Amino acid sequence: MEQTPEPSDTITLLSKKLGKFVESRPMQNLIIVLIILNAVTLGLETDTDIVQRFGAELNTFDTIILAVFAFEITSKLVYRRLAFFKNGWNIFDLIIVSIALIPSSGPLSVLRTLRIFRAMRLLSVVPSMRKVTQALFSAIPGILSVGSMILLIFYVSAVLSTNFFGSEFAQWFGTIGRSMFTLFQIMTLESWSMGIVRPVMESFSWAWAFFVPFILVTSFAVLNLFIGIIVDAMQTQNADTKKEGPENANETHKQDLRGELIKLQNEVQELSALIKAEKSRDH
Amino acid sequence: MEQTPEPSDTITLLSKKLGKFVESRPMQNLIIVLIILNAVTLGLETDTDIVQRFGAELNTFDTIILAVFAFEITSKLVYRRLAFFKNGWNIFDLIIVSIALIPSSGPLSVLRTLRIFRAMRLLSVVPSMRKVTQALFSAIPGILSVGSMILLIFYVSAVLSTNFFGSEFAQWFGTIGRSMFTLFQIMTLESWSMGIVRPVMESFSWAWAFFVPFILVTSFAVLNLFIGIIVDAMQTQNADTKKEGPENANETHKQDLRGELIKLQNEVQELSALIKAEKSRDH
Amino acid sequence: MEQTPEPSDTITLLSKKLGKFVESRPMQNLIIVLIILNAVTLGLETDTDIVQRFGAELNTFDTIILAVFAFEITSKLVYRRLAFFKNGWNIFDLIIVSIALIPSSGPLSVLRTLRIFRAMRLLSVVPSMRKVTQALFSAIPGILSVGSMILLIFYVSAVLSTNFFGSEFAQWFGTIGRSMFTLFQIMTLESWSMGIVRPVMESFSWAWAFFVPFILVTSFAVLNLFIGIIVDAMQTQNADTKKEGPENANETHKQDLRGELIKLQNEVQELSALIKAEKSRDH
Amino acid sequence: MEQTPEPSDTITLLSKKLGKFVESRPMQNLIIVLIILNAVTLGLETDTDIVQRFGAELNTFDTIILAVFAFEITSKLVYRRLAFFKNGWNIFDLIIVSIALIPSSGPLSVLRTLRIFRAMRLLSVVPSMRKVTQALFSAIPGILSVGSMILLIFYVSAVLSTNFFGSEFAQWFGTIGRSMFTLFQIMTLESWSMGIVRPVMESFSWAWAFFVPFILVTSFAVLNLFIGIIVDAMQTQNADTKKEGPENANETHKQDLRGELIKLQNEVQELSALIKAEKSRDH
Repeated sequence: MEQTPEPSDTITLLSKKLGKFVESRPMQNLIIVLIILNAVTLGLETDTDIVQRFGAELNTFDTIILAVFAFEITSKLVYRRLAFFKNGWNIFDLIIVSIALIPSSGPLSVLRTLRIFRAMRLLSVVPSMRKVTQALFSAIPGILSVGSMILLIFYVSAVLSTNFFGSEFAQWFGTIGRSMFTLFQIMTLESWSMGIVRPVMESFSWAWAFFVPFILVTSFAVLNLFIGIIVDAMQTQNADTKKEGPENANETHKQDLRGELIKLQNEVQELSALIKAEKSRDH
Repeated sequence: MEQTPEPSDTITLLSKKLGKFVESRPMQNLIIVLIILNAVTLGLETDTDIVQRFGAELNTFDTIILAVFAFEITSKLVYRRLAFFKNGWNIFDLIIVSIALIPSSGPLSVLRTLRIFRAMRLLSVVPSMRKVTQALFSAIPGILSVGSMILLIFYVSAVLSTNFFGSEFAQWFGTIGRSMFTLFQIMTLESWSMGIVRPVMESFSWAWAFFVPFILVTSFAVLNLFIGIIVDAMQTQNADTKKEGPENANETHKQDLRGELIKLQNEVQELSALIKAEKSRDH
Repeated sequence: MEQTPEPSDTITLLSKKLGKFVESRPMQNLIIVLIILNAVTLGLETDTDIVQRFGAELNTFDTIILAVFAFEITSKLVYRRLAFFKNGWNIFDLIIVSIALIPSSGPLSVLRTLRIFRAMRLLSVVPSMRKVTQALFSAIPGILSVGSMILLIFYVSAVLSTNFFGSEFAQWFGTIGRSMFTLFQIMTLESWSMGIVRPVMESFSWAWAFFVPFILVTSFAVLNLFIGIIVDAMQTQNADTKKEGPENANETHKQDLRGELIKLQNEVQELSALIKAEKSRDH
Repeated sequence: MEQTPEPSDTITLLSKKLGKFVESRPMQNLIIVLIILNAVTLGLETDTDIVQRFGAELNTFDTIILAVFAFEITSKLVYRRLAFFKNGWNIFDLIIVSIALIPSSGPLSVLRTLRIFRAMRLLSVVPSMRKVTQALFSAIPGILSVGSMILLIFYVSAVLSTNFFGSEFAQWFGTIGRSMFTLFQIMTLESWSMGIVRPVMESFSWAWAFFVPFILVTSFAVLNLFIGIIVDAMQTQNADTKKEGPENANETHKQDLRGELIKLQNEVQELSALIKAEKSRDH
């Protein structure tokens, strides 16, 4: 009762085979090699000498790699269908490859430069880096509240410093944007005193009373952001260890004492049976 | 036996209703939106172009928001009475709104700038930020002794450096205040060598023997301040986890062994009853 | 049978009373106040205006405080005798006060400046600061091996950089001392690139291969020094907590199960007695 | 039945004795002293004055020390044979001493400078430093994945910044190498704003949108690298403590309860024997 497969069935079967082939380890390793090679050639393209001599070859190589990536992603897309879009990395891959397909001439020539983002695909394709990347992303929610607090302090300080110093030091505090950049620089402690605060203090001698507390408060907040991540990491690790370590020891201990108790129960039951037997004999 | 409510009773009832209404979640969410809108308009007011075009509108909006805040705080004050002042955030809100009511012209025009502090109310109104803020404040007592130690080191170093370098480098070490600012800059490692210590060493070749230990000692002290906070945070977290985790495991273990023991006790009691019954039968 | 006390006995008694009086809490609090006042006056003495007007008064006050300190230390020394020298802080106090007694004119005028070190006595006299200071000192042995490793890396790098760059950049790398100072500056990341390494790279284009690894290695070593202290602090704290917390829980658990076991033993013994009684009755 | 030892046997015996002698504690202490002395003399050789006066003596001393080291390493090599090469430090020692044996004149004169690396032997010869060094090396595998991630971010950013800013700011971003050095400088926060980003922003006003995220991302990644090491160190320490501490407590607890159980078993057995005896008597 064999059935001639419908054309659509053949396609489904083919797309499934192709999808599995593309997602297999050897194919992924090949992709890793291609990503690294592509990253190297994109690096070489920054050198005008090399571009003049081997520009055509590099371009051809780039087109080949792009074709492989486009083929890989299309296969995945056909195989996984809508589930493809549930994985953030797939969307990232799709955007990166799509960008490369846009004709990048004229005003869009900056898109050519963005090709190097393809190297970021390593973060998703190499298993150990994927793990680290996910760990980094998973740390983000835990720091959102401290992060938004720092942002609030920044915004308030930016408005204040624009109002205070904006007219005289327009280059540093002329607009809220400039103030935020300058305050970010001050938070990183880069040239905060010799570069910014001392010159400002020549006009506003009380300026230290604004900037020193700003540094102390933001450092303290960043420190707490930092501590939050450490404590979280420690908790996760501890939880992992507790599941294995002491539980086992406890288990052994429990088994041990229970064994003794059961032995004792058996003896008491034996004793009980003995007495019952005697009793029935007595009757 | 109904009683006509006294006028004062009506007011109490009204103030209670109003207080509850003002402290309700939806009303607080509205307040959050207003605070953010106000922060944005106060940000826009830093731009002279926007002020020239929409100055009047921004001012009206500011007055409306101020009225809402004043109404909110008055309601709370009438509702909570003296308990109102037990909450530091209420006092903070009261001060911020009161400042805005002072006519801010002439020498007091700086007070207009301080209106942006209203945005800080987010720290108390948004629950997650309130939690973080309280955590930050709760970390302060733990660092007071290390903090006062650093302050002492700063003061002693400031007196020493004023005496040593004050006459020659008046701009940096002329007074104790200037010395403390310069030493704070050195502690943050900003331009400490190229900006300050190398020029000083041209006159006082031994100056490194003062500044390098200063950097090492303050870094070490700040590091310990830092560690104190980490260890504290870890302790708190650990204490929280211990209450839940291992206790439960222990509890199960205990219940388990106790169950076996109780079974054994029942058997022994049964045995005992058996023997007693036989004994009484014997008589 | 009372005995007339020998003169030496009277002195012993007196010195004991005096020692106890000097070491009592109220007296120590007075000392704290005097130290702070003295720190303030020594701070005021850095201002030439104040010295011109109130120089004599400040000097008198300083002499009085010095007399009180000298009296305090002498009393302690007589009371504690050789045990006095077992406490590092006593020796520190003795040196500080002794210095002040040296006539500080001519070439020794720098000693007048060192009087401010008296303020450091706060570290030993204020109990909470004494605790923190001892904690800081107790962290030192744990970091000695990493510290000496960093010193070794510094020395080797200093010799290398003096040999490499000394002839061309004598100001920064002319001698081993200068090299060590410059390398310390580079380790603190102050102007390392724009100030030092970029200029050096104009003559020695490979210099980055010396300085970038130096920064990475020293940062990594300092980081580990840092981690050593954190882990130590955590261990100490954990050890302290374990003594109280889980031990108690375990203890309760143990008591609980043992109680059940003892109850069971009593029942079995009762049963045993019952049977023995019956047996003896049978005879 | 004594046998005349073969010549090769005598050599084996001799090399074994020699090897043990060279690896003995007193000999190693002598080596430590020689390393330190050599480090000092190599330091002195950086001073041209001292070289002119005592150059010959220093050279002789250096040759003697080199001879001792060469003898030590040869002894070890003969004693340990191939096992010698299993220890990384031995290979390090061998390279350092071999370098010194190459005639260091002409283009190879830089090798003379590398003699100071001999001081690094302290890391392997002093036991406490060896321990620390091994701890540092053991921390490396744990940071490889985060480290390679940072390297990837660096490379991608370097290609981007070379493409964006290379033509205009050739000195900082002209090639990928220069871009990586500049980005490393920016990551260390050295003059990132006043020195690099502000000048770049004068030509490319959007440059902050490239550099500020770069700083945030790399800081976050370095922070996680850092946290990885802390958590690892904590885990190791915790594992060490758990082996000793709570296990023992548990052990005692276990022994305690088991003791009670065994006592109970004995009593029940006694009871059992009693009943059996009575039963047999009844027959």
